Amino acid sequence: MSWSGWGDPAKARELPEPVLALLRDLLGVRAPGTPAAALEEVALPPVVLPEPVLNALAKVVGEQNVRTGHEDRVRHTRGKSTPDLLRMRAGDGSAAPDAVVLPGSHEEVAELLRVCSRERVAVVPFGGGTSVVGGLAPDRTGFAGVVALDLGRLDRLISVDEESMVAAFEPGVRAPDAERLLAARGLTLGHFPQSFEYATLGGFAAARSSGQASAGYGRFDDMVVGLTLATPAGTLELGRAPKSAAGPDLRQLVLGSEGAFGVITALRLRVRRAPAERRYEGWRFATFAQGSAAVRALAQEGPLPTVLRLSDETETMIGLAKPDEIGSDGARGPDGAGGSGAAAGSDGAGGSGAEGSGGAGSGGAGSGGAVGSGCLLVAGYEGVRVGSRHAAASALLARMGGEPLGPEPGEAWERGRFSAPYLRDSLLAAGATVETLETAGFWASLPRLYDAVRLALLGALGSPLVMCHISHVYETGASLYFTVVTPQDADPVAQWERAKAAVNAAVVEAGGTITHHHGVGRDHLDAYAREIGPVGTGVLRAVKAELDPAGILNPGVLVPRA
Amino acid sequence: MSWSGWGDPAKARELPEPVLALLRDLLGVRAPGTPAAALEEVALPPVVLPEPVLNALAKVVGEQNVRTGHEDRVRHTRGKSTPDLLRMRAGDGSAAPDAVVLPGSHEEVAELLRVCSRERVAVVPFGGGTSVVGGLAPDRTGFAGVVALDLGRLDRLISVDEESMVAAFEPGVRAPDAERLLAARGLTLGHFPQSFEYATLGGFAAARSSGQASAGYGRFDDMVVGLTLATPAGTLELGRAPKSAAGPDLRQLVLGSEGAFGVITALRLRVRRAPAERRYEGWRFATFAQGSAAVRALAQEGPLPTVLRLSDETETMIGLAKPDEIGSDGARGPDGAGGSGAAAGSDGAGGSGAEGSGGAGSGGAGSGGAVGSGCLLVAGYEGVRVGSRHAAASALLARMGGEPLGPEPGEAWERGRFSAPYLRDSLLAAGATVETLETAGFWASLPRLYDAVRLALLGALGSPLVMCHISHVYETGASLYFTVVTPQDADPVAQWERAKAAVNAAVVEAGGTITHHHGVGRDHLDAYAREIGPVGTGVLRAVKAELDPAGILNPGVLVPRA
Repeated sequence: MSWSGWGDPAKARELPEPVLALLRDLLGVRAPGTPAAALEEVALPPVVLPEPVLNALAKVVGEQNVRTGHEDRVRHTRGKSTPDLLRMRAGDGSAAPDAVVLPGSHEEVAELLRVCSRERVAVVPFGGGTSVVGGLAPDRTGFAGVVALDLGRLDRLISVDEESMVAAFEPGVRAPDAERLLAARGLTLGHFPQSFEYATLGGFAAARSSGQASAGYGRFDDMVVGLTLATPAGTLELGRAPKSAAGPDLRQLVLGSEGAFGVITALRLRVRRAPAERRYEGWRFATFAQGSAAVRALAQEGPLPTVLRLSDETETMIGLAKPDEIGSDGARGPDGAGGSGAAAGSDGAGGSGAEGSGGAGSGGAGSGGAVGSGCLLVAGYEGVRVGSRHAAASALLARMGGEPLGPEPGEAWERGRFSAPYLRDSLLAAGATVETLETAGFWASLPRLYDAVRLALLGALGSPLVMCHISHVYETGASLYFTVVTPQDADPVAQWERAKAAVNAAVVEAGGTITHHHGVGRDHLDAYAREIGPVGTGVLRAVKAELDPAGILNPGVLVPRA
Repeated sequence: MSWSGWGDPAKARELPEPVLALLRDLLGVRAPGTPAAALEEVALPPVVLPEPVLNALAKVVGEQNVRTGHEDRVRHTRGKSTPDLLRMRAGDGSAAPDAVVLPGSHEEVAELLRVCSRERVAVVPFGGGTSVVGGLAPDRTGFAGVVALDLGRLDRLISVDEESMVAAFEPGVRAPDAERLLAARGLTLGHFPQSFEYATLGGFAAARSSGQASAGYGRFDDMVVGLTLATPAGTLELGRAPKSAAGPDLRQLVLGSEGAFGVITALRLRVRRAPAERRYEGWRFATFAQGSAAVRALAQEGPLPTVLRLSDETETMIGLAKPDEIGSDGARGPDGAGGSGAAAGSDGAGGSGAEGSGGAGSGGAGSGGAVGSGCLLVAGYEGVRVGSRHAAASALLARMGGEPLGPEPGEAWERGRFSAPYLRDSLLAAGATVETLETAGFWASLPRLYDAVRLALLGALGSPLVMCHISHVYETGASLYFTVVTPQDADPVAQWERAKAAVNAAVVEAGGTITHHHGVGRDHLDAYAREIGPVGTGVLRAVKAELDPAGILNPGVLVPRA
């Protein structure tokens, strides 16, 4: 994983000149004056943890598993939001932990929490490091130091119960490894967020991740039937049945707790048979409103496809939902408008390019200019009864005014589904800020929410490019996922923070939730406090005080300070 | 509602002589020596709430809404578990509240909680009064008195959003009224627990109810997309989107809180289009294991029927799943074994008799003796795509060894679905203790759980009649619902308490959850504490202390004392 960008550096690529020209001409993007810092140039604060404390940690996990080297610390500094990357590219390592600690068992995690509580050491649970909401940058005020608790050694598939269709995992298993381990038994989780290649199962649970196939496989929190949480107050073991009336569902209190209540050390997850059949395709709707009505009808009447994604007019025009053309030679969308955008964060989709399918004209009849003038819907069907589900859903989409575009737009989306963050790195280097934002609400509130977010961005950034899609649907509502591209000004971090603050306020004001699947972290903390109000905040603080009396767990994240 | 039994006293009926003979001959049931007490004979403790406190309550809700009369107090004493009914029939009103208070708005509820916190008055939120787990009998130690906070005046449908398919209700709306109000717009909740006729929406939420159509409509907690909770610490307003990653799902902390954290004053519920089509039918499986495998396959591969219920061999033989014969003239099951059992509690099904469809032989070919020698599965399909769902599910059931019995057994079940509690009253009067128990677990654990509960009952009661069905299924597991019939001994309450304690211990030991949909109350409190462990208990206490610092809300219920 690139320390200052996304993914495998070998997959990084330059933007071709036509795209750069487009950024210049359409948005006024100019290349930044200073080049990105090299890893060894990142300025880190001195290690302030006293030697005896480091020794106490080493006594728990072994000396080789307490690391204070430059690269280890840099690689555990911040997450993967655009401001995080901008700061890292500027060589700002001020949020670095003093040390990285790698426990090898639940017992070692529990003992680490005892030691850190005693020594007042802040602990940042660290999975894949893919937070896009500041969830890895704790407030160190009042602490003797900060350690990143890297769960990478807890990477085992513990057991599989094929009768109950439940697999038990340690938290540090990365999603591709989980899928590989399950595939050996013909099983799958079906959880494919955009962070898939690097994120861990523990992180998915702690941040309530939702993947691109959530319509068919559900959100990650739907998959968690049991978990083990190590806390400074002891161990919490939850989940004796799929559902229960035994009081509040405490699993749902741990899910979304973002490392502030404890460290998840085991997860029991619902698995499914790996799909034998897959079918992806595209549909065109004349307007986002018409497409939204169709998506809503699918969610309310069924049957839902496994993957369902509707791009608004701008995203469709820019080609984000059909990204193969972006970054491939002479790339332009088949609609002739070109492909300059990029989705980022832990969802969305974007240009892989590497296996580019031929750019313009590859979609066959009906997929070209026709999509460009409306909204692209991608529907994917996997698993059982693909034929009958496809037939029923297609009949509904046609009834709601959809025009079938055949498999090509769907397959193009499927090929590029994990590639957008790579494109973001290229755009950052070219002088564009690219970031994503998301919210969710009830169907009746979505138009207001859509307008509120766009207006806030326009107000804060002048004339950015703002694209949106719906990709997580429920009977009663859906999420809205925005991608923003804007030229960097002299202080792009501050520039984005102003935009972000405006959007946060707009979302709360318009009645949406501050986040559908990115989490709270620090970036959403104030808005979150408004969302749940003082009584909700009081509940969070009470739970935190009970489980983490010394307040060492991810301080400043999730739980609003009094 | 009968004050010492279930439902409309006009619907009560005597057991016919053949059933009484069967109880005598098969189980050794003997009629109790003393007749049940009359309402005016119930011994109530004196009202200990001081006059100034009663006046302070009256100032909030109006004098006519603070009631201390004999009948009002009796009707708010305890719930509808068998021990509750046995105590009431014995004239034991020791658990009566001092007064019944009926607020008319959220604001009045909030103000009542302030007054009661100040005056140290315990508050029992009271919906339909149908708790079967002791959820309405608080521990009054240390309090100036106890009031039942009856939510019956909060009975409005607040709003309907047909785009989002969300309806907002006040908590005191009874389920039949909710369905009537929604039916006027062609909508339904689809929540039909056995307590349907009397239970309230607020109670469903507070106790995590699950209805007979949960396979199709989901549990009640699945339906709650938002709620308002009045607490002594202030108001909690939750639910800005169907799903969110904004921290823990605090809705799931309120659901199942059984009035111990606050009083639900509004609910926003997902609704569906009322089904235009319904289709119910029966299937026979040779063994419970074979039937369970079929039910599991439906849950894991789909499509699920709307109603799915599999009776074990004993329940099938006794005819509980096909109850119309019980209580009708000369009643015997079509299998010749007769119908002596009864489901009770807030789920299950049982003999309506009133509209009896003709008893033996009414099922047509294949439904008679053939079911008696195996296990009856009832499958019901409602709503959209009934034809294709029925076809696909039927193909699966046949593949798994099921023998189709046609519509009659399904329709018979559907007719009698809310009648079992009436039958329980007759059995109690005849000298039999009838009670229900339920748990849930993952599929692989169900055989062990099934055996553990049966063994515990046999150990505690000698040779009771124990019947079981599966009626709530999930991909990873299911609930087991037991009905027990045993002759009353000299102290039937103590007799049942011994059996209940044995079952509670067995469920915890076998790894199941102590309750799938009845709730914790007082009857499951010790087992619940073992289920969530000391850390989980600590979390509950911390939340309770934060929201209800004076501890006035339903003391002794849900939250294990330190």
